[in-house]
Formats: sequence, structure tokens, C-alpha cells
Amino acid sequence: MIPAIHRALNDPDNGAVLSNFYVAAGLQEGGHQGTFWSDGDCYKWMEAIIHVLGVVDDPELDRLLDELIDVIARAQEPDGYICTQVQLTDKGRWQAPQFHELYNMGHLITAACAHHRVTGKENFLQVARKLADYLYQVFQPRPPELANFGWNPSNIMALVDLYRITGETRYLELAQTFVDMRGSAPKTPGRQQDDRGGGGTDQIQDRIPLRQETEAVGHAVTATYLYSGAADVYMETGEQALLEALQRIWLDMTTRKMYITGGVGTHHHAVSKRGDRIWEAFGLDYQLPNATAYNETCANIGNAMWNWRMLRITGEARFSDIMELVAYNTLLSGVSMDGTHFCYTNPLRWYGAEHLLLSQDAPTRWHTFHCYCCPPQVARTIAQLHEWAYSLSPEGLWIHLYGGNTLETSLDGTSSIRLKQETNYPWDGYIKITLTAVPTHPMALMLRIPGWATGATLRVNGEHWAEQPQPGTYAVLKRSWSPGDVIELDLPMEPRLVKAHPKVEEAANHVAIMRGPVVYCLESVDLPPAVSMDEIYIPRDVRPVVRYDEELLGGLATLELDAWVIHGPPWDGQLYRILGGESRQPVQVRLIPYYAWNNRGETQMTVWLPLC
Amino acid sequence: MIPAIHRALNDPDNGAVLSNFYVAAGLQEGGHQGTFWSDGDCYKWMEAIIHVLGVVDDPELDRLLDELIDVIARAQEPDGYICTQVQLTDKGRWQAPQFHELYNMGHLITAACAHHRVTGKENFLQVARKLADYLYQVFQPRPPELANFGWNPSNIMALVDLYRITGETRYLELAQTFVDMRGSAPKTPGRQQDDRGGGGTDQIQDRIPLRQETEAVGHAVTATYLYSGAADVYMETGEQALLEALQRIWLDMTTRKMYITGGVGTHHHAVSKRGDRIWEAFGLDYQLPNATAYNETCANIGNAMWNWRMLRITGEARFSDIMELVAYNTLLSGVSMDGTHFCYTNPLRWYGAEHLLLSQDAPTRWHTFHCYCCPPQVARTIAQLHEWAYSLSPEGLWIHLYGGNTLETSLDGTSSIRLKQETNYPWDGYIKITLTAVPTHPMALMLRIPGWATGATLRVNGEHWAEQPQPGTYAVLKRSWSPGDVIELDLPMEPRLVKAHPKVEEAANHVAIMRGPVVYCLESVDLPPAVSMDEIYIPRDVRPVVRYDEELLGGLATLELDAWVIHGPPWDGQLYRILGGESRQPVQVRLIPYYAWNNRGETQMTVWLPLC
Repeated sequence: MIPAIHRALNDPDNGAVLSNFYVAAGLQEGGHQGTFWSDGDCYKWMEAIIHVLGVVDDPELDRLLDELIDVIARAQEPDGYICTQVQLTDKGRWQAPQFHELYNMGHLITAACAHHRVTGKENFLQVARKLADYLYQVFQPRPPELANFGWNPSNIMALVDLYRITGETRYLELAQTFVDMRGSAPKTPGRQQDDRGGGGTDQIQDRIPLRQETEAVGHAVTATYLYSGAADVYMETGEQALLEALQRIWLDMTTRKMYITGGVGTHHHAVSKRGDRIWEAFGLDYQLPNATAYNETCANIGNAMWNWRMLRITGEARFSDIMELVAYNTLLSGVSMDGTHFCYTNPLRWYGAEHLLLSQDAPTRWHTFHCYCCPPQVARTIAQLHEWAYSLSPEGLWIHLYGGNTLETSLDGTSSIRLKQETNYPWDGYIKITLTAVPTHPMALMLRIPGWATGATLRVNGEHWAEQPQPGTYAVLKRSWSPGDVIELDLPMEPRLVKAHPKVEEAANHVAIMRGPVVYCLESVDLPPAVSMDEIYIPRDVRPVVRYDEELLGGLATLELDAWVIHGPPWDGQLYRILGGESRQPVQVRLIPYYAWNNRGETQMTVWLPLC
Repeated sequence: MIPAIHRALNDPDNGAVLSNFYVAAGLQEGGHQGTFWSDGDCYKWMEAIIHVLGVVDDPELDRLLDELIDVIARAQEPDGYICTQVQLTDKGRWQAPQFHELYNMGHLITAACAHHRVTGKENFLQVARKLADYLYQVFQPRPPELANFGWNPSNIMALVDLYRITGETRYLELAQTFVDMRGSAPKTPGRQQDDRGGGGTDQIQDRIPLRQETEAVGHAVTATYLYSGAADVYMETGEQALLEALQRIWLDMTTRKMYITGGVGTHHHAVSKRGDRIWEAFGLDYQLPNATAYNETCANIGNAMWNWRMLRITGEARFSDIMELVAYNTLLSGVSMDGTHFCYTNPLRWYGAEHLLLSQDAPTRWHTFHCYCCPPQVARTIAQLHEWAYSLSPEGLWIHLYGGNTLETSLDGTSSIRLKQETNYPWDGYIKITLTAVPTHPMALMLRIPGWATGATLRVNGEHWAEQPQPGTYAVLKRSWSPGDVIELDLPMEPRLVKAHPKVEEAANHVAIMRGPVVYCLESVDLPPAVSMDEIYIPRDVRPVVRYDEELLGGLATLELDAWVIHGPPWDGQLYRILGGESRQPVQVRLIPYYAWNNRGETQMTVWLPLC
């Protein structure tokens, strides 16, 4: 992904947006190219490189980063301000929230923090601190004219991160101010029309102060970024009202507004229940259409980012379940199998060229795209997924995500922990963890038992662990450990037929099939000729058979199942017709993981299949 | 309905809107009450009375009308202008399209034309002519500053009607101008936000000139009123481009955007594909959700009004089919069985108090309501339905709607036709027509064979008619007739299981049940205790049994059928769960006509039922 995105960021077709920094630094001639948020796209891509440097040694990438950081430092204004699309145009600073100044700046700071953490260098961090000090001076105390200023608030997460690295409480204070500012603008009667900028719109979660909000609403990226930032603030302040709001909104989202893939943001363009124009946004309760599902890749990742933070706050497996659900499904669907092409939207049903919405919604995988936020978002998230796999608490080591890897860490900074995970997860449910270095005192290992893993088994050195693992919890293995101890977790990988709440009209009387964390789909290219996607019905007692196909798209587990083709007369422009005249024939159908769709040319696809 | 609406129009809770005319006439003290369109509500109610006077003699109603007409004449300004909410406020004339001046005026003219036609009187017609002459002077030639002026264009239908009565071509010319004005305003770049007034919004079919429009879009009442008015203009001008646009839009609406009940207007509040904020509006292609279906009663009736006009243009039964579909379903659902309570919206699924949208959308039947357009719309339409039952052409007499009635008319103004229809339609498909007076020369009778009536039989004087009636056409019975001739039409009334196009996600793998023109629904009050509406599944081979229940809601045909209860564990806040743990038991279920729902207290209801 990293070279592919590098090419795109330098591609004139995309607006060669990396050049904006060179121009702002006075190193190149030219004007601003790309979108309001192109700076952020570049920082997110740099962040991906940084996370890669955290696990592999690559002097070439390290050098590339240092060159870019140097250019960025030169592009930064003497007072600390940096946002090339304002610097290179006559827009002026802080004129309109949708210019994404704070968004771009937030991603700079986040990348710089990661850079310092991974490399120990100060060069990027210095730019970030200078920028944050400038922001503190502008926004602290909050000036009334900027009371509702803010759009997609990456800056909140960023400032908390910078506080953690520097210990500078001003940054935390500023992060909290950005949380507090939402919903604080005076409401203008009849302002319904004024919902691109201005305060008080559901589009940017700005109608109601976050602590009073009851639902997930508006643009799903700005929403999940706000919730993530607020969770970061909570982690440092412990303010109960903030956590309660987040819990409330999380429940609303996960029980009424989230797709089975973990995708969020039903609508391309709609109106919120409270009357605001909203883009790329959450729908009404249970409003989860498939063919028109927006599910912007960035929003889905925002959902995972938020859950990762809720997990760190609570230690509850319901949060890691969604983090993993997103990772294996609607995050991964955003990138082609070869890592070079990307999607902006992630629908759950696709009719090809007959799709109904705007051309922007076409999920055809592209290399360059006028709105290029998603590719670096996918890249930085996949590149940092190892950081979401484990965490530490005073009790011990938490294992959230399973996969082949080795870990070297320490509970208290002195006694080291080393372990090796061996597994073919998610294609196989068997996970073997061998401890190679352990503390001398007893330590707990918290192993995530996914919510779907009814019947999981857990053995330590070949013996069943005393307590049966409970799905949707962390199994706590507290004891004294010795090097060479082996933990074996066996997660049941029977394919599961999943149905949606009956109020989800678009999935009623349908079923989706999952195996482990992976959602499957039917892609028309896997159907016999002359059979249409809409004609496939699934018997309630179907028993899908898992078949690992190493030839297919680099190797993945497919599901084969005995379904029915219910074939009727052609529709010929009718909207309604009498049931009947249908023939029913058995057919064997192959499903592939949802994330792998749209890698074999233009196809039709559906996640939900009708029951018969 | 007429006394109930009279009470509501005088009810202070509703804004005693009839008093606006008395105040404007200087006969009462006070200010304006009600909505922008309250004048129109009053005129529509008067029109209902007028149509009733067309079939029954009621001096009391006649006197009431004359009193009101006298007050309206006094309220009219010397130059002809009349719109009480402008006259009684400081709004000023022609300041904003949404003030509904043309809408109110249109309904005045329509009511006045009906009054003249039914009673022969001139008093109301004089007010209408004076008003129309004023409009001609304001809008002809079209002043640039009013180029895009217009909202809900009842005025187009009205002016054509006035032209037909008076023969005054200026009125037709003006009607045509109001058609031409749509989409004619200069487009302002970035005007997306300015979509309440101004030109160029899909909300009022004003983005694109009607002759170039390809789809049914925006507010479904303004849409169907515009299409109806344009059809009226076409009838008088024969302009092909207008008819082609209407045919194109009709196909779009009926094959992608109409509910099975004939209801139109998917959304309460949304955004059109072209980016305009739209209220009470058509959705995207195949976007037909049930629980959130808006289907404003006025829009559904607008659909019938448009089809009635398309029928008169073409003589094609596909138009009468929809006219009848609306009449027996989503028009009738707008009024309680006793005629005193009304609905604004007509969803196809209802969960009671847990419904998702704004309080305005509650279909709970009410007597008074802040937006009172629907009750008089229902009343005037039911009161004039006899006018939609028959029509004449040079070939002969067309019979569009079946029902017990007698007709007295004449083909050429001299030789009279009299007939008697005897039938219990729609509960029974047997229709007997006895001719009691006929012209001496041969005459054709065109009998509508509904699109669903496969296997209809037709006899004349006991003998099968030579040609088998074809569903979705008019059977043409051309011959010499004698008094006493009997035509017997037998329409098959087997209940039909109907499915929707597979792209209608909200009805996929579901079935609706119809019998004749009547759509049925399941209302939770008809279920055994402890069985929930969502648990009822319909076997594909179900054979509903018709049972006429004369005790139920004044008498109606119910359908009884053997269904399944598939009962699962409670959802407990889950959005997705594993299929399984369900028990399946047979249950006998009773369905009632959709229009009769919500007459037995607060219930749950669904039209679409899942297949099993």
C-alpha cells in the first residue's frame, strides 16, 4: 500500500498533493492542489510508514520520512500554523470549519507522536509541539467567535496523544476544550438551511453538547473521531459524564445503526431526524439498506478506533469484538487484495452499473480518487493493527486479536514478557501461545473469547483450564508462569447463519453467513451461468462447508453450500407481480469473504441472502 | 365527513380557519389563523359539499355554500386578489412561493367551477373569474421576477377547468404559462441550500423544465398536482412533448417509486439524487421502506387524480388500475371508518409508539391537526368518485369503476343512455349492468378489465361475449343495444400473493396479499395473545379463504389463512444474532383490508409478510 499511495499522492490526476508542502516551504513553484483535507491524507500515509518502521527496519523509508518532515517544518509558519490549502490560497485562517484546518493539524500531531514513539526522534515532534502551542494560544480560552469551530476532530485524539508523550497538561486542556466546544454555539432560529458551516448541526455532532447527546448522528467519520477523541480525554480525566455519553451513543450505534460488517454511515446524503442536512451519515434507527449503504471506509475505521479506545477504558470484550469485526470486514473491503486500489464506500449489495446513487458512490476500486482520505486511513490502520493486538494493565497482559506473531513487552518496565502466537486464524480457530519469558511473580493473561465463540476450549500445558471460557468475555488465566508454558485456545469455527433484528426491513427474512469474525458474501462471478444473484435462496437448515482455496485471491476460506435457485419470469419493468410461475432447483453456491469482493472484475454482490 | 370537517374548520384547536374569510370580509374581528394553505382546505371542503349536491338534494348545504361564497366574495380585494393569510398579515403579495397563494387560489377556482357545473349558479364562478383575470394580469406575460413563482400548483388544473367552462382562452394560456414556468428560473451556482423558496429545486419539480424531466421527484403532492395540471393542459393543446414527459415520469413513478397500495412519497424529509432538500417526497429508485413510508394522503390522491387524467387522454386501463388501487387502499386508509378521523401519513408497517420518525408522522387518526390539508382532500375525492366511474368518447361509454349505481347520460346530447349497475364489488366480482335506455344507433361499451383479472368472463344477455376479456384492457362491446339488455362481468376474486421487484429491499422475500383491487394487511389485534406481528410467516402455497364479516367495522371481506408462527428468543437489544432456537407452530391468521387498519385502537400493522 505504501508505494501505491506514494504514487497517488504524487499523481497529477489526483492533485499531486505532496507537492503542497514543497510549495508552502518555498521549495517549488505552484499553487495548492487537491482537497481541503489533502494535508491530512499525506500525514496519514506518513503515519502508515511510521508504524511499519515500528516492526521492520527500512532505512529508505526512514530517510523519506526525514525529508518530508524537513519540508513540513519549512512549510510551517513562524507562529506554528500549518495548513497548506489555507497558506497557498487567499482563504485566510479560521474562516470556515469545513476548511479542515484542525483536521489536518490533528493528523500532523498524531503522525508526529507516532514518529517519536517509534523512532525516538524529535524532528517531527518539534513541528507538532510548535503547532499545538499555536493552537493553545488561539483556542485557549475559547474565543466566542470560534466557539463552534471544528469539523472532523482528529485534533482531539492528537492533542491527548501529545499530552501523553510530553506530559504537557496544556495539550490535554486544549483537547478537552475541543470536546466542550461541540454543541456550545448559540442556536439561531431557522438555521436549518445553514448546515455546511456554522454551529448547531447534526452533521458534525454539534446540535447538542456531547455530554447530553443520546444518539450516534451525522457524518460518521466526524462522529467516530469525536467519540474517539472524547474517549481519549476520558482516559486522562476520568470524567464520568463523558464516559456515560459515550456508552449511550455506543449502544445506540451498535444496536440500531451498524451494519453486520461493522460498517457505519447509512446515507450518502440525507436529513437527520432533527432536520439537519447530513452527508456520509448515520441513518434513522434500524435504517440499514444494503445497495445504497454508504459505509465510508474512513468511517468504518473510525468505528474500530473508537472501540479500541472503549476497550482500553473498560476491558470489555464487546468492544474488541467490533474492533475485530471492522478489521476483517469493512476495513479490509476498502482495499484490493494487492493493496493498490481502494474503495470509498462499502455497500452490502451491489448491482453493478445499475446502482442508484451518485457516481461518487461507485465502489469500483480505484488507484486515484478526488477524495483520497480512505487509502492512507486503511494503510495507517493496517500498519498499526499490531498495536491493537495486545495491551497491558496492572493485572497483566491482554490479548485482543489473534494472529501469528511474537511479542516482547514488560509489565512494569523491568520483568520482561515474551511470547509467540502460532495460528492460522481466522481460517482456523486453533491458537497456540508459547511463553518464552515470564515475570517471576504470578501474572494474569487475559484472552479474548469472541462473542460468537460458544464452545471455545482453553488448555494450559495440555490441561483444560478450570473455567470454561465464556463467549464475549476475557478469560483470565492468573497463575505463576514458566518459560515454555503453552496456552491453547480453540475457537469454534462453524459457519453461523445470522439474522438481523426484524425492524431492519432491508434484511428481514434474510440471512448472512459468518465464520469466526469474517462475514461472507455471494458474488455473481461464483454463480452458474444464467443464474442471477437475486434468485439464490438459502434453506434454514443449510450446512455450509468450509473449503480453503489457496488459488483464490491469494488464498482464503470459502464456504460451499446447497442452496436453491428460485427462477421466475423476467420482470419486464414491473414493480409488483403475482407470486408464481417459479421453478426451484438445487444449486451449489460458493461464498467468499466480504472483504474479498470486487477483486475479480465488475460483479454483483450481496451479503444478505433470502431464506426459504 | 362533511360535518366532521366543518367542526374542525371552526375548531379553535385547529385554528378556526373558516373565520379567516369572515375577518378578511370585515365581518369579524381577528387575525389570520391556521396555515399558509388553510384557505385551500376550506375550498376543498366546499368542493366536497358541491359534489354531494351533485347527487343529493340538500337545501341546507346549498344555503351554507351560498353564505360562504358571499363571505368569500366580500373578502376578495377589488382587483380580484384573495388569499387571507396574506391579506390578514403584513406578508405582502407574491413575496415567497411557499406562502401558497397560487395553491389557495387554484382550489377556489376548482371549487367554483364544480359549483357552477353542479348547481348552474354564477356566484362562485364570478369570484373565480375575477381572480383569474387578476392572475392573468399579474402573470401574463410572465414577469422575470416571478419566473419561478409557484409551489403546489393546483392553479393549473383550476385554470384549465375555468377555460373549459367559460371558453376563455386566456385562462388556458395562463395555465400553460404556469407549466412553462417550472424549471425556467436562472440557476444560481451553489444554491443547494436555498431550497425552501427560490427556483431550481427538486422539491417543487423546478430544477428541470417539465418537458425535459425524466423522473418523479420531490414533494409528491406538488409533483402529482403539476403532472395533473400538465395533463389537463395537454388535453386542450395536444402538445406531444408534454404528453411524452408525463408518460416518462409516470413510468418512472409506477415502476420504481410507488407503494403496492398506490401510495407515493417515500420520505418525510430527505435529499434528492440531485442534491436538493425534499420534504414529503419521492425516494430513490426502488427505495420503498414500509415503517417510515410517508405516503401523505394528499399525495396518494394526487396520484389518483393524475391517473384519472392520463386515462382520459389515452383510454388505457393501466391508468384506471392505479386510480382504483389508490381509491380502495391508500386514499381510504386516510379516513376512519366513521368518517370523522383522518391520517396524514399512510405507512405500510407500524410499530405503534416505537415508530422512528417525527411526531408529525404519527398515523394515529385525529380529528384536528395543525396541517389539515388531507381531510378535505379525502372528502372531495370520495364525493366526486362517481365522476371518475364513467366517461364518454365518440365511440361510446366507458366504465372505469364498478359499484352499485345508476347512470343517466347521453352520447351526443340527444339520445339518452340509462343503465343500472348491480354488484357487491369489491367484495364480490360479479357485476350486472342493465341498460334501460339506449341510443338507436350502435354504440360501444368499454368495460374495464382490471390488470389483475385474469380469467374474467363477460356475457351479454346470458351469452358469452365473442372475445375473451383481456386483463389490463377495456373490453369493447360494440353493437346495437336494446333496453333491457344485460351485461354480466365476472371478475375473478381469488386472493393473490404479490411480490415486489427484488431491488425493493424492504419487501424482498416477503409477500403482500391482494384480492381484487384491495390490499390486505395484518393488524396485531387479530393475532392470538403472545404472538408478535414479526413472527408471522406465510407459506408459499397458502390459500387464503375469503370470509365476509358483517360485524367487523361495518362489514368487510377478511382473509383467513394458515400461517406459521416462528418464535425465537427475545432480542434484548441485539441487532444481529444467530438464526436458531426458533420454534415453529401453525397459526390461523386473519387479514383485513389495509384501508381499515387503525380503527380498533393502537395496533401494530404490516402489509408485507415474510415468506417461508
